[in-house]
Amino acid sequence: MSPAPAAPSADAEARAHLSVLGEPGDGALGAMVGALGAPRALELALGSAPLPSEAHAAGLDGAALADGRRRWQPRRGDLGAALADAARVGAALVTPDHPHWPRRVDDLGPHAPLCLWVRGDTAALVAPAAVAVVGARAATGYGEHVAGELAAALAAAGITVVSGAAYGIDGAAHHATLGSGGSTVAFLAGGVDRAYPAGHQELLRRICAHGAVVSEVPCGSAPTKWRFLARNRVIAAASDATVVVEAGWRSGSLNTASHAAALGRPLGAVPGPITSSASAGCHRLLRTHDAVCITGADDVLELIGESTATAAVPAGPEPGGDQTRVRDALSVRTARSVDEIARRSGLSAGAVQSVLGLLALTGAARRADAGWTAVSAAG
Amino acid sequence: MSPAPAAPSADAEARAHLSVLGEPGDGALGAMVGALGAPRALELALGSAPLPSEAHAAGLDGAALADGRRRWQPRRGDLGAALADAARVGAALVTPDHPHWPRRVDDLGPHAPLCLWVRGDTAALVAPAAVAVVGARAATGYGEHVAGELAAALAAAGITVVSGAAYGIDGAAHHATLGSGGSTVAFLAGGVDRAYPAGHQELLRRICAHGAVVSEVPCGSAPTKWRFLARNRVIAAASDATVVVEAGWRSGSLNTASHAAALGRPLGAVPGPITSSASAGCHRLLRTHDAVCITGADDVLELIGESTATAAVPAGPEPGGDQTRVRDALSVRTARSVDEIARRSGLSAGAVQSVLGLLALTGAARRADAGWTAVSAAG
Repeated sequence: MSPAPAAPSADAEARAHLSVLGEPGDGALGAMVGALGAPRALELALGSAPLPSEAHAAGLDGAALADGRRRWQPRRGDLGAALADAARVGAALVTPDHPHWPRRVDDLGPHAPLCLWVRGDTAALVAPAAVAVVGARAATGYGEHVAGELAAALAAAGITVVSGAAYGIDGAAHHATLGSGGSTVAFLAGGVDRAYPAGHQELLRRICAHGAVVSEVPCGSAPTKWRFLARNRVIAAASDATVVVEAGWRSGSLNTASHAAALGRPLGAVPGPITSSASAGCHRLLRTHDAVCITGADDVLELIGESTATAAVPAGPEPGGDQTRVRDALSVRTARSVDEIARRSGLSAGAVQSVLGLLALTGAARRADAGWTAVSAAG
Repeated sequence: MSPAPAAPSADAEARAHLSVLGEPGDGALGAMVGALGAPRALELALGSAPLPSEAHAAGLDGAALADGRRRWQPRRGDLGAALADAARVGAALVTPDHPHWPRRVDDLGPHAPLCLWVRGDTAALVAPAAVAVVGARAATGYGEHVAGELAAALAAAGITVVSGAAYGIDGAAHHATLGSGGSTVAFLAGGVDRAYPAGHQELLRRICAHGAVVSEVPCGSAPTKWRFLARNRVIAAASDATVVVEAGWRSGSLNTASHAAALGRPLGAVPGPITSSASAGCHRLLRTHDAVCITGADDVLELIGESTATAAVPAGPEPGGDQTRVRDALSVRTARSVDEIARRSGLSAGAVQSVLGLLALTGAARRADAGWTAVSAAG
């Protein structure tokens, strides 16, 4: 965690800039950020200096840097427009030092998103349980019906339904989640300022109001084919499990499924009539035993339960624990100094400073003249 | 192999009698037959002597014998009627010394059928490849369509389709096999002299003409609930693989499936809409990974192929090898002595005698005044 002011951290700013320079999943950028931190990676990406010795030590490659610069530097002037578009639509920037960064995506390693641009409620990204419900655009009535039933039941169980806002299965899953008052997150392949597909403009508006519309590419970006494939890895990584409802033999949702499998995340597939080509991809996943047969929401809960049961104990300290302690030490009415908050929370002043920066970014804390206050019950 | 005359062997006769005394799968009878041979087991079943020492040595139990006698002896007078009914409908008796005994069922151990009563072509029992296509009586149009398509494609690939002649999936499988000129075997829960279900009288007649209708219970036996369950184990055991097309949550075909799994035979299940209760049992098999997802005949062929690939090399000599050598040594026109046949075949006179008995039972050889002749190209 950076010692953060209320404004975006240097790390967050650099990541926003890097997200403009590189395409999603650019492993060379990801490796540089991992080894050197985002600000230094940005300097290197935009500069002309040879790869520094500390980067060599981290296993980076001078040739990859030179190649990368040829991709990245033509976009060096694009940040301003992206930020202006983001500001216009009220998109928030969420990076790893943001309390709502979905830590699940870190499992993608150097291919993790550098940042996320979010419209709606950033807290939707850190739901205790999230399940991706995905499938073919060319869905049948059966598939849309099943996607809707499944999503509504998951939402009723308090599970956030993640999908891709496409026509067909994705749309049915989002619609049903909204219809049952649940929280849903749509990951887009293009910028969050663009409603894609156009016919889902109203759906996306509703998702913003009751969940979040998210993209790793900056505002203004078109949803290219590459970005669709890259987006699929984020859907899989941001979810505890992925369920494919209907998928043709070569459906893009099988790409999402293979990312889930590669990440070791539980994968389910809903069967259908073998006479329906819209279920051929699901049956393929069942035949290879890559996916578990899903016949209803209970089966999905079991899928997540197994995942929880077999998940490793987190290696680090409990994430978010310090935030809870700092928030407990804040008052809505009385401004408190950092030292006072440190005393009440039992944390060091440095740690409090750092956590306050995060809370300010999400609007959970506010810096006043006389110190810090909590902001109502939000967050 | 018993040193057999052209008439049914003593073993075969005893087995026929035992099949009248006991219910299918009577483990006490099966264990006695396995340890002492059928003729001696019959003596013991009908007698009152204590269990002989050699039976003790084979692990048999005097208390089980006493219990068994109370079940078996009330039926001691029933053989005559059963044989008369069998003769009336032309049912053949097939026992382990018959060349068309389906050796697959021996995997049932002491629960193997003691004998089979067969109408139609006994050779249908020893097809190189046999697949059971089974499922719910309360099938949907989808299920019957799929069962028919699957059975027709398997028949076209030269595979014998095994089923239970019930309404729904079974009937669709038999019908389609007959319609595409294939061979099909129906295992009944009651005697083969009884058309059950009654509405399948014409179907059973056609199966007799182009395959075989088989039961382990003697003619005159009613199809009781126990016999249905016992029959299911024979369907599974007589087939290289079992495919469940449609099955409700508690369908009897799941019983067949569990027998297949217990025998280590490949098991497939056809998925269907999760909104259809007629597919719930299939999805259950897929969820537990007991069954492979089957979407067409190619998947079934792969199922058998895997089975063949992983099957152990037979422990004994090649079954039927001696028969081929004896048949090669026979002439249609010239009667030959046992010694002459032994010389030509390279087998001992005792082995030739034994094989000639088997060939006579199937009508492939005939005893003449001057020795033995082959019967045309049949067999």
